[in-house]
Amino acid sequence: MALRLDDKFVKPFITDEEISAIAPEIEAAAASLRAKTGKGAEMLGWLDLPENYDKEEFARIKAAAEKIKKTCDVFIVIGIGGSYLGSRAVIEFLRSPRYNLLKKDTPDIYFSGCNISGSDLDELLAICEGRDVCINVISKSGTTTEPAVAFRYFRAWLENKYGKEGAKERIFVTTDKARGTLKSFSTDAGYETFVVPDDVGGRFSVLSAVGLLPIAVSGINLDELMSGAADAMTALSAGDVYTNDAYKYAALRNILYRKGKVTEILVGYEPYEQMFCEWWKQLYGESEGKDGKGLYPSSVIFSTDLHSLGQYVQSGLRTIFETVLSVETPDSEAKVPNDPANIDGLNFLSGMPMAEVNRTAMNGTLLAHVDGEVPNIVLRLAERSARALGYMIYFFELACAVSGYVLDVNPFDQPGVEAYKKNMFALLGKPGYEEMTAELRARL
Amino acid sequence: MALRLDDKFVKPFITDEEISAIAPEIEAAAASLRAKTGKGAEMLGWLDLPENYDKEEFARIKAAAEKIKKTCDVFIVIGIGGSYLGSRAVIEFLRSPRYNLLKKDTPDIYFSGCNISGSDLDELLAICEGRDVCINVISKSGTTTEPAVAFRYFRAWLENKYGKEGAKERIFVTTDKARGTLKSFSTDAGYETFVVPDDVGGRFSVLSAVGLLPIAVSGINLDELMSGAADAMTALSAGDVYTNDAYKYAALRNILYRKGKVTEILVGYEPYEQMFCEWWKQLYGESEGKDGKGLYPSSVIFSTDLHSLGQYVQSGLRTIFETVLSVETPDSEAKVPNDPANIDGLNFLSGMPMAEVNRTAMNGTLLAHVDGEVPNIVLRLAERSARALGYMIYFFELACAVSGYVLDVNPFDQPGVEAYKKNMFALLGKPGYEEMTAELRARL
Repeated sequence: MALRLDDKFVKPFITDEEISAIAPEIEAAAASLRAKTGKGAEMLGWLDLPENYDKEEFARIKAAAEKIKKTCDVFIVIGIGGSYLGSRAVIEFLRSPRYNLLKKDTPDIYFSGCNISGSDLDELLAICEGRDVCINVISKSGTTTEPAVAFRYFRAWLENKYGKEGAKERIFVTTDKARGTLKSFSTDAGYETFVVPDDVGGRFSVLSAVGLLPIAVSGINLDELMSGAADAMTALSAGDVYTNDAYKYAALRNILYRKGKVTEILVGYEPYEQMFCEWWKQLYGESEGKDGKGLYPSSVIFSTDLHSLGQYVQSGLRTIFETVLSVETPDSEAKVPNDPANIDGLNFLSGMPMAEVNRTAMNGTLLAHVDGEVPNIVLRLAERSARALGYMIYFFELACAVSGYVLDVNPFDQPGVEAYKKNMFALLGKPGYEEMTAELRARL
Repeated sequence: MALRLDDKFVKPFITDEEISAIAPEIEAAAASLRAKTGKGAEMLGWLDLPENYDKEEFARIKAAAEKIKKTCDVFIVIGIGGSYLGSRAVIEFLRSPRYNLLKKDTPDIYFSGCNISGSDLDELLAICEGRDVCINVISKSGTTTEPAVAFRYFRAWLENKYGKEGAKERIFVTTDKARGTLKSFSTDAGYETFVVPDDVGGRFSVLSAVGLLPIAVSGINLDELMSGAADAMTALSAGDVYTNDAYKYAALRNILYRKGKVTEILVGYEPYEQMFCEWWKQLYGESEGKDGKGLYPSSVIFSTDLHSLGQYVQSGLRTIFETVLSVETPDSEAKVPNDPANIDGLNFLSGMPMAEVNRTAMNGTLLAHVDGEVPNIVLRLAERSARALGYMIYFFELACAVSGYVLDVNPFDQPGVEAYKKNMFALLGKPGYEEMTAELRARL
């Protein structure tokens, strides 16, 4: 199994009775998920996506990635929320958080259209100067403000540099399969298009074309990633709170939530896990944070943040718990060098693999935080590989759905995201919002 | 004033009586801070640092930065916690979060020694290959594991490339002024050294040599930064909860904390603010997270994270409040391009400055979140400049100290950070920790 839940460091904080009490709720949640009778059941396409995906499109994604790798130095991915977090998380996890700074035979990859910052756009355009560029715009509707504005910029930039004909070979569009002006415009313009599936929400879409095209451009093996997810789909397809780790994770975090642990901190020990934590924060925060309920998702990278948030975790307000991602197989052979001068007094570590020091820091921290009354759920990932990561992605998606059902929310909608958009459009004077405008302006 | 607190969007959630009730507590906290009679009073060097700093060392920092700029392509800053967060925050805020990817006439700057990741070290060493390197190791004691191990690596790398004599011109050490083996070794080896002041804790040290040398290497004007902090020192030296915005911020967050808002989310609207948020998280989390108390510090960058955590903030568990950083003067002239095809239906925005769209997103979000029962404190920063940032740094430091006193903790210690270190050393078999080793191993 690529991922295993270790409950040793959460056990001191929960009772067997609490687990057996929540077991039927988990069972009911899983049953309604499998039977597609629960809330948001029309958005369950991710559940069998690792096997039931469009094979023809999958081959086109690989071919497009090869073409992109050959024809550009810089690949701009334009999308916001689930349209960029998944691919960015996977690329940084498997390649590097410093991917663009490494020597490599794949293009630099930049993410745009995920903010409204003018200086961010100015910078990206300067970076593109004199380099060959391809873009992938990812937007279900084509009308989301942030990616739409970025697409206006980069389409104009490409057409200016390569002409309309040249640009059309460099623009790849991931959008609705049929509806929307972005789809029809793309068809007319001759852009290659890929599909944002109707039954897969943004935060569950990393294993669809949404995530896969950028991931493939970075040189990651898509087959391995999908195989890992398929492994998880099989391994986690049955069982109960005692035998299915996704169900167990859903159970433990709901038990802790009910006991007043309102914040869950996802903990990594490698810098490459940071964007994965961001992906996880969207997955859980957006799925569960509704109806006045839900764990607040936060994240840290240790030992880095032991020197910033470590004090709080050890001794602050006791309303937190941690979920620790432990990558079990080292991916570096770096060892602590010997220093004859022993300036730092650390020669007892000389020759020890860094991975062992890091693992020991984790073990020391687990014990310290348990002593500080912070429950710790440990997720042990076999290795840093596409296959293991695919497994973990599916694990978290499944656990999230079950967890949301136990919380009695619809884990697949996000009505709260519309609130700021409506206000923004009204304040910007968008046609159709006139009635709200004056009232909102008066409140500023 | 470079920074102004706007309480319009927090007012619906607190009463005038609550402010007048906490006013005497704030007054007492500020008085004991000024009189140096409160907890941790031996660590108040930061309070008058913007004026009372070592002018001779300040000049040496500038000279060293000029030398570093001339002699290297890559500058490695080795430090953890307060030894790197401040400089990284300032560099990204004023230059760019993509600083290393921009064309520029200053060296690339990488941060090392802030984790125990072998792959992170491997990567950095590969990046240095064939390039000229200088390093700045920052460690009060010289014995903290993470930076010590990185220093072993990079010292060996430099001595291998340039010889001992050549390397000594490329190693800059920021450490205790007299104690510790790092100081004595550096003196013997002929490294230029700078001082981690005795009365300034790591998280308050960005305006000392700790932060200033890397900041200067990035090309930022140190005089402007210090002037801004001195402006704040003067502007915020007196007054009360009604007239002093640092005191007001301390009051508002304590009132909200007492009303069950246990998580404070620092909100930025520009990607360049992200590391500043991380600096803030250490400042507040490590100062207040003790004795089973303290607000949990979290952060987001909007509108990016409106599409990930926005749903939670709008409609999740109501135990959060936001503190919003608004940069008032645009630093980009980028405008929304017109699109004759109007694919996205956004032509009503054509020609509008991105800064205005971003500001409107913020205003729309403020109203939406207030409607969602989330109190919002707004901090209005005049501009993206060294002077304004210096002001804001001092503002947050002062407010943190006062806030910690009102919470009745020592805002200047961090005893909880030792817990994991002790366990780690015992598990690693460090001499002197033998008694703990067996007991801890048995618990794993």
